[in-house]
Amino acid sequence: MTCDACLGRWPDPGDRIADLGATVAYLHVDQFFPGWTVLVLQHHATELFQLSREARSALIEELSRAAAALHAAFEPIKVNYACLGNVLPHLHWHLIPRLEGDPAPREAVWAVPHAAVRLDGPARAERIARIRGHLSG
Amino acid sequence: MTCDACLGRWPDPGDRIADLGATVAYLHVDQFFPGWTVLVLQHHATELFQLSREARSALIEELSRAAAALHAAFEPIKVNYACLGNVLPHLHWHLIPRLEGDPAPREAVWAVPHAAVRLDGPARAERIARIRGHLSG
Repeated sequence: MTCDACLGRWPDPGDRIADLGATVAYLHVDQFFPGWTVLVLQHHATELFQLSREARSALIEELSRAAAALHAAFEPIKVNYACLGNVLPHLHWHLIPRLEGDPAPREAVWAVPHAAVRLDGPARAERIARIRGHLSG
Repeated sequence: MTCDACLGRWPDPGDRIADLGATVAYLHVDQFFPGWTVLVLQHHATELFQLSREARSALIEELSRAAAALHAAFEPIKVNYACLGNVLPHLHWHLIPRLEGDPAPREAVWAVPHAAVRLDGPARAERIARIRGHLSG
């Protein structure tokens, strides 16, 4: 087993927001785009078509639920949804609320060079709690 | 009505691959990454959480079916799935097979500066037919 997601090496357990069922939500380590969240599938798969229809349906329900929570928490203009897996193929989804005042509102986040923003402990805990609150609401 | 997808102005009807039910698949205008396909929702919505559970389930089935077709057609290392909507918020999904020999295999396509590759008519028709063939298989 060489998958960092399966081994629990990624994401950092300290960044965990909530267990959603098929996936676990984590605050992304870089908060340059505030609220950037990652949903990681609980079991190992690398493509949508490897899942059962039921597993796909559960997955998109959790993506939708998490996006709704981010929308309520951050009031973005748009949520971005992306499953890339070029570095870590284990299925995981980036959910990125794109806020008013975004430095490059028409660009994908990956096209925006920036220094990573790593929140200190209290700010990180506050942001996790804020998203968690909207997930349970 | 000011949505270019709803008005039929985007994507180009000539790039249409197939009607999948909830979405229509088009060959992306830029084929620098060969096989890049876009699935456009048939009705107007901008976020997953605006859809019914049934509509979301249909959507992810079509994403999965199209990804499987691209996988069969291009044998990629990984398929990328992304719904951004920063420029055109009408729900649409980029499906990008990342092939052996990719110029930046660990990067999101949006982080890879490149000149757009616009296929000429016959090459374009061939690529559309190739994906269509795998969709119907």
